[in-house]
Amino acid sequence: MINEKMRLLGANRSTIRELFEFGQKLKRELGEDAVFDYSLGNPSVEPPKELTDAMISLIESTPAIKLHGYTSAEGDRSVREKIAEHISERFDTEANPNLIYLTAGAAAALTSVLSAVTTPGESVIVISPFFPEYRVFVEACGATLKVVPAREKDFGLDVDAIKSALDESVAAVIINSPNNPTGAVYSKSDIKALAELLSKKSKKYEKPIYIIADEPYRELVYDGAKVPFIPRYYDNTIICYSFSKSISIPGERIGYAYVSPNAESSEDVFRAICGAGRSLGYVCAPSLFQRIIPDCLDVTADLAIYEENRKILYDALTEYGYDVVYPSGAFYLFVKSPIPSAEDFSDIAKKYGLLLVPSDDFGCEGYVRLAYCQSTDMIKRSLSAFETLIKEFQ
Amino acid sequence: MINEKMRLLGANRSTIRELFEFGQKLKRELGEDAVFDYSLGNPSVEPPKELTDAMISLIESTPAIKLHGYTSAEGDRSVREKIAEHISERFDTEANPNLIYLTAGAAAALTSVLSAVTTPGESVIVISPFFPEYRVFVEACGATLKVVPAREKDFGLDVDAIKSALDESVAAVIINSPNNPTGAVYSKSDIKALAELLSKKSKKYEKPIYIIADEPYRELVYDGAKVPFIPRYYDNTIICYSFSKSISIPGERIGYAYVSPNAESSEDVFRAICGAGRSLGYVCAPSLFQRIIPDCLDVTADLAIYEENRKILYDALTEYGYDVVYPSGAFYLFVKSPIPSAEDFSDIAKKYGLLLVPSDDFGCEGYVRLAYCQSTDMIKRSLSAFETLIKEFQ
Repeated sequence: MINEKMRLLGANRSTIRELFEFGQKLKRELGEDAVFDYSLGNPSVEPPKELTDAMISLIESTPAIKLHGYTSAEGDRSVREKIAEHISERFDTEANPNLIYLTAGAAAALTSVLSAVTTPGESVIVISPFFPEYRVFVEACGATLKVVPAREKDFGLDVDAIKSALDESVAAVIINSPNNPTGAVYSKSDIKALAELLSKKSKKYEKPIYIIADEPYRELVYDGAKVPFIPRYYDNTIICYSFSKSISIPGERIGYAYVSPNAESSEDVFRAICGAGRSLGYVCAPSLFQRIIPDCLDVTADLAIYEENRKILYDALTEYGYDVVYPSGAFYLFVKSPIPSAEDFSDIAKKYGLLLVPSDDFGCEGYVRLAYCQSTDMIKRSLSAFETLIKEFQ
Repeated sequence: MINEKMRLLGANRSTIRELFEFGQKLKRELGEDAVFDYSLGNPSVEPPKELTDAMISLIESTPAIKLHGYTSAEGDRSVREKIAEHISERFDTEANPNLIYLTAGAAAALTSVLSAVTTPGESVIVISPFFPEYRVFVEACGATLKVVPAREKDFGLDVDAIKSALDESVAAVIINSPNNPTGAVYSKSDIKALAELLSKKSKKYEKPIYIIADEPYRELVYDGAKVPFIPRYYDNTIICYSFSKSISIPGERIGYAYVSPNAESSEDVFRAICGAGRSLGYVCAPSLFQRIIPDCLDVTADLAIYEENRKILYDALTEYGYDVVYPSGAFYLFVKSPIPSAEDFSDIAKKYGLLLVPSDDFGCEGYVRLAYCQSTDMIKRSLSAFETLIKEFQ
């Protein structure tokens, strides 16, 4: 018989995806220029030249049978060494290549890590608003999602609220900074307070409570914001990293899971992640894209474009009277809905060709998310629509 | 706490992998030439020129942001259409692109399909000897593995034995033809008999019992052997295909799941596969390699090399007195151990530098598997070692 849970996961597309498809239809009806699509977090900035150069050079210099052959399940040894060197230098730490597991993107890292550090019946804390797939990934392991709201004023960590939610069932806390959908970057003091809480509770419950740091947006920060390197503050940390946004290759599925060398039984944690990846069918991360990594560790796509988009949109929207969360990172703007129902607001916005994702799916009501990883031209052309839209509610 | 099941999966490497690592060590000690490594099923024949040409042409002609961007979760539409056309023409059928889900290789197809068509507590039949990861994949879904031995004389399907094992708990039967590790290709009459049995039992138990056809070796057949196209004989069939072996790109992780348009509620089955892939963290199959597929559907690596290896090895081994299963496909030779314990035999063979995988992990005792996807030169050089080895037992 068909597994009904899986059928529903396949049949019910996310709101984001629905909105995107609606936009495609609208474009066919009204023309490209009449639709301002802020739905998908799909990078719009070309990958850096180093990526294409690395690909061409690998294709020219490496026998194809080797280039496209299996690597070991945890990834090519020399690539893992380069990543460890990069992390060590950048964060002034001692990363261990033996604790780096190359994955098919951050999603594969998350599903593997969650399977590795939870047992069915345990729970995982996420901070709302949160990336909706966290629910899917956590529940796939037989664990339960515990949703703890962020601080409303700046969408930082509400450590007191986490404390209240933290019981013996909790195996891990997922931290996503820079944050999708708010653009918030968690401060060092927030991270320190969380670390202190988790250390205390780990001792009390006699088991490590992990921080799973989902960091696909680490490189996307503005105004010189600093993203704290969490293993510096908390030993039982596992980072899930992706090259999707930093070098604009989200379709290629390449990233890694990094276990802090100071984590309790770090080698066993690593082995459990490898075992989980194996059981999920991940034989190895795509081999050509594993091998481009060493040439792309120190480069990013031209993020100045996102910075410009952010400024144009943030300045205009606040000027028109929108209540906007000031984003320090990622490429999302989180905007308060002028009416209680974000879904109704999103529907009204469609009349003006504006596709804004209501926040309900992110586990938080009353906001819309704007992915500003769009062309600057589209953003500029959309401004008058935003101005007219808010007047309906003023 | 660390998930102990996952830790064990990560810590206990497969026997195949252990043997391979042992071989690497031996090579460092004794020199490359002293080791005859038949452990890994890792293609040794260069990918076809069409693959590299397709890559270069895509890199030159497609904007990088598009080439490496997300595709829809089920895969690029035009690629799915080309695969459907290819299947339709080749097998004189009407494949539906809407029922083709591009995956990160056959392993990802298998884990997604198994999650989609089983519910915890159900069971899945595999035919022994079988690819050891089937156990891992089936158990990861909360289902139970039911092992049914193949016919011993030719390692075809023992449909009577399958009938005896087939109770109400069975959700699916995994069929792997050409077979790893025996090289057997199931005959049309075996497939028909299985189809008849499953149709009868599906009716009796009032649920479809699926055939999951794992076909990474479909293109690797010899002496003009024909691999029956199972959807022709049985409606509730799902094919898991991979380009790993046919065009020698196992590290790139590209393949697909194909749901027969005649399967009961085929669209729901398809959606459940997509949902399962989503829950396992597969966002989309690697995008560059999705796009090379249309240019590589009608080509293979130079399989004549495998055919030559097979002939040299089969002829020599039978001449020396080994009892060898005659292989019609894949790149494995299944050889009867001259003593009851295949593990002991494998250990003795190491003395001669011969790395032969004992069959115990394949759910069948008393044989060793030789992966002959090695250089023809190595195979020729290994023959005298085989000759000396068997003399110990004659």
